[in-house]
Amino acid sequence: MTPQDRIELFDTSLRDGTQGEGVSLSVQDKLLIAMKLDEFGIDIIEGGWPSSNPKDEEFFKLAQSLNFLHSRLGAFGSTARKPDQIETDVNLNGLLKAECPVITIFGKTWKLHSEKSLGLSDSENEALIFNSVKYLKDHGRHVVFDAEHFFDGYKDSPEFARKMLLAAQSAGSDTIALCDTNGGSLPHEVFSIVEEVKQIVFIPIGIHAHNDGDLAVANSLAAVRAGATQVQGTINGIGERCGNANLISIIPNLLLKMRSEVCPQINLDKLTALSNFVYEILNLTPNTRAPFVGKSAFAHKGGIHVSAVLKDNLMYEHIHPEKVGNKQRVLVSDLAGQSNIRYKASELGINLDDHPELAKKIVSHIKHLEFEGYQFEGAEASFELLLRHEMGEYNPYFNVLDSRVHTEYDKEGHNTAHVMLKIEVDDEIEHTAAEGDGPVNALDNALRKALTRFYPEIARIKLVDYKVRVLDEKQGTRAKVRVLIESSDGENTWSTVGVSTNIIEASWQALFDSVNYKLFKLHSPEKESLPTP
Amino acid sequence: MTPQDRIELFDTSLRDGTQGEGVSLSVQDKLLIAMKLDEFGIDIIEGGWPSSNPKDEEFFKLAQSLNFLHSRLGAFGSTARKPDQIETDVNLNGLLKAECPVITIFGKTWKLHSEKSLGLSDSENEALIFNSVKYLKDHGRHVVFDAEHFFDGYKDSPEFARKMLLAAQSAGSDTIALCDTNGGSLPHEVFSIVEEVKQIVFIPIGIHAHNDGDLAVANSLAAVRAGATQVQGTINGIGERCGNANLISIIPNLLLKMRSEVCPQINLDKLTALSNFVYEILNLTPNTRAPFVGKSAFAHKGGIHVSAVLKDNLMYEHIHPEKVGNKQRVLVSDLAGQSNIRYKASELGINLDDHPELAKKIVSHIKHLEFEGYQFEGAEASFELLLRHEMGEYNPYFNVLDSRVHTEYDKEGHNTAHVMLKIEVDDEIEHTAAEGDGPVNALDNALRKALTRFYPEIARIKLVDYKVRVLDEKQGTRAKVRVLIESSDGENTWSTVGVSTNIIEASWQALFDSVNYKLFKLHSPEKESLPTP
Repeated sequence: MTPQDRIELFDTSLRDGTQGEGVSLSVQDKLLIAMKLDEFGIDIIEGGWPSSNPKDEEFFKLAQSLNFLHSRLGAFGSTARKPDQIETDVNLNGLLKAECPVITIFGKTWKLHSEKSLGLSDSENEALIFNSVKYLKDHGRHVVFDAEHFFDGYKDSPEFARKMLLAAQSAGSDTIALCDTNGGSLPHEVFSIVEEVKQIVFIPIGIHAHNDGDLAVANSLAAVRAGATQVQGTINGIGERCGNANLISIIPNLLLKMRSEVCPQINLDKLTALSNFVYEILNLTPNTRAPFVGKSAFAHKGGIHVSAVLKDNLMYEHIHPEKVGNKQRVLVSDLAGQSNIRYKASELGINLDDHPELAKKIVSHIKHLEFEGYQFEGAEASFELLLRHEMGEYNPYFNVLDSRVHTEYDKEGHNTAHVMLKIEVDDEIEHTAAEGDGPVNALDNALRKALTRFYPEIARIKLVDYKVRVLDEKQGTRAKVRVLIESSDGENTWSTVGVSTNIIEASWQALFDSVNYKLFKLHSPEKESLPTP
Repeated sequence: MTPQDRIELFDTSLRDGTQGEGVSLSVQDKLLIAMKLDEFGIDIIEGGWPSSNPKDEEFFKLAQSLNFLHSRLGAFGSTARKPDQIETDVNLNGLLKAECPVITIFGKTWKLHSEKSLGLSDSENEALIFNSVKYLKDHGRHVVFDAEHFFDGYKDSPEFARKMLLAAQSAGSDTIALCDTNGGSLPHEVFSIVEEVKQIVFIPIGIHAHNDGDLAVANSLAAVRAGATQVQGTINGIGERCGNANLISIIPNLLLKMRSEVCPQINLDKLTALSNFVYEILNLTPNTRAPFVGKSAFAHKGGIHVSAVLKDNLMYEHIHPEKVGNKQRVLVSDLAGQSNIRYKASELGINLDDHPELAKKIVSHIKHLEFEGYQFEGAEASFELLLRHEMGEYNPYFNVLDSRVHTEYDKEGHNTAHVMLKIEVDDEIEHTAAEGDGPVNALDNALRKALTRFYPEIARIKLVDYKVRVLDEKQGTRAKVRVLIESSDGENTWSTVGVSTNIIEASWQALFDSVNYKLFKLHSPEKESLPTP
């Protein structure tokens, strides 16, 4: 690898990643992830398989209006079904219709599959690959040929596998990606096979690894060392079976351990945030032990390590955690907690260094809440209200005197949700009722109705996101739940949290904070608007 | 590596593994794990650091009475503190007192640590290592010298690092384990450094890797290829920061991919059970995507893959799952075609090939439900009920005539949840009420109460897991939610699903299926028990 060789990063979270068990993305989720991948600096974002399902077709339609800073969008599909019916092939034409600059098609390079699965002779398979690639090239697309099962195919019959690569190369393919589809290859095998392929393939070579042997990251790096210049993978290694090669691990290894100049556009300090964002969208619990980005990745427990690491972090850390947007944690001392909270407070313009007693009180209050299951990382508005309350700057803008939620399910299967709500603002009482699509929606409606005459501004608040996480899942229906609500007034968004064994109560806490936060921002003295009630 | 070279497997789950965040083992837990490791065929089980804490001291005392079939027990500690006070060193004597056949001591092989952390000259550090190893050898123990930070130390100063290894070798150490303590080395570096060490070290070489670069498995295998014959690691890769090298991945790679004869005593088909056992004892949720042993490791979702894998499992599986005690699974999902559903049905003993019309109807019904937000890949019991219902084999065991859920939240912040439930079984009506920790828990309680006199068997059902996923989160509190419930009767577990904009209704559907599934299994004709009501 010479310094001028760039490594092209190819993300397939939105396509191969969705093959993973428990991975399910709406079109909206996919658009959000694509935008984050672009911000991070990924070169090619593979969005889906347009002919395989209508959701992916819709994604490609909507993705046309995304204005990427850096990324190019890719669509995925197979070679044609019949070598002599290329022009009318549904899959190839579906790929063209997706209107992406990059198209990846996979073809068989393992004789077992070509013969047994498709029933093709060698020359028929060769023609399928050649004609399919050529057709897409004739339509002006950048074509990546995914050589499916390449390593297994090469070990079985190098002649067959080579012949298929040459077909793609001579048809004008821009890149040939060698796939370890079953994920069982070893790094030294990948290294030497890529070296051998380099003897006959003169266009860029890519690597697409799966993690069935726990070696996908190592296999990808081995291929790069042997001369591959495109790396395919997914965020957090999502994907079928044991997952795809994890770009979250590959990228920092490449940039911090091998050659820093190979991906100049990557914002490596956003790596942890990107990983967490994708976990959040997928509603999957982050892997705390994940290399580079996990919450425990730079956490120190043993006394010896802690004192050494405070002297020089590289004594027990392989990199500086800030480089990947992560941070060091010391698990024993409560000092870590205080400095964190001081730091967060200073972000809000509150200097807790001047109030050591208050800081201590807040830390102990937050520790108690965290023990109860609250989490303020994703709920900064609730955190700010808590802080402002302790500082004497904020009190809720209304009191809840009574709230009754009633849901019914009758024998016809109809279900209804009603709420009766009694609140108090400045000694005035409002007693109202509302219904909704479910109990939480009914509460939301009742609260707005009750508050409108006091605070007409709240009409502008919209709830844009609502998430539920069961905390101690083993407790069954008695488990605690944490609700996170994201609200917007069209200009700003803010997040609030609630925790309870009762999901309605947890949602209610988060709703309560959401409305109060908006009112605080409107009415607090620094805004010089209405006085605080 | 010649065939007669055995690989010695060295497990440090009970010592280095317990440094992981959230990992905590009682003495009893440790004894149970040690016995399982012995059954599985591990060569050396490192039990703890006797002088570092009283729990480990007690473990070594009680472990004397374990009768291992194969394993040898090891104790861990550091070299002495002062080169001239060996005989009186607390740590070394503590190690001897643990009465283990194997003792591992670590010493500094990175000048940075030796100089900066301990303030030693090179020759002082050398004497510390030599004298400590010799003292333990003079007491007749099998000694493993752990060369801490060896790879970083070697890259920094090969002379210094080599000198320390030679000190351990000439003092009579039985094995020298090269440690990648910070876990940041790359496989090709490990390979070439081990090859270089082989030039001067003539006793067995071990590898002790950490996973900070997501490469611990690859680094361990690279060391073996370069000539290391001892592999240290932990079960499920537990350990500080990102964990230690995962023996659960290393062992099958060694035996199935490299050389089957290197660990003849290993019961590889117990691998999945061992992994699950350790997760269970640690009370950690298993990683479903774990290579070899994860629940998803041989799970197939895409229609193309499924039809191929049914023809020949090696088409999309790198090994036969039975070899590691795991099994193939076909997932039902929106990417699924008819072949997935046929396969699932055949697992339940239903041959849909004989009923093409019914198969078509079921596929279209499932597609519709999936469009509504249902997901059956995590809810196999709901899927079976749906299938059995379409086949005319199952009808619910009770009707719900009315269900009213009432939650209240008063001004003191107290909240309560009550349910009134009216059900019908064989024209008999049961009208009852119950309360609970939240509305779903109250429903669960009411349903059990109502059904007990008809079906006393349901008393054995316990809800062991409860998950909530908000589907179209952007709809705010009006969003649909999907609830997954896992139930157990002490012998079997089963999973059910419900979807609604109303979380109580969604939970209710999943509860309804859970109870009906248990009743179906008890009462269905093939069980020849009670007739279906």
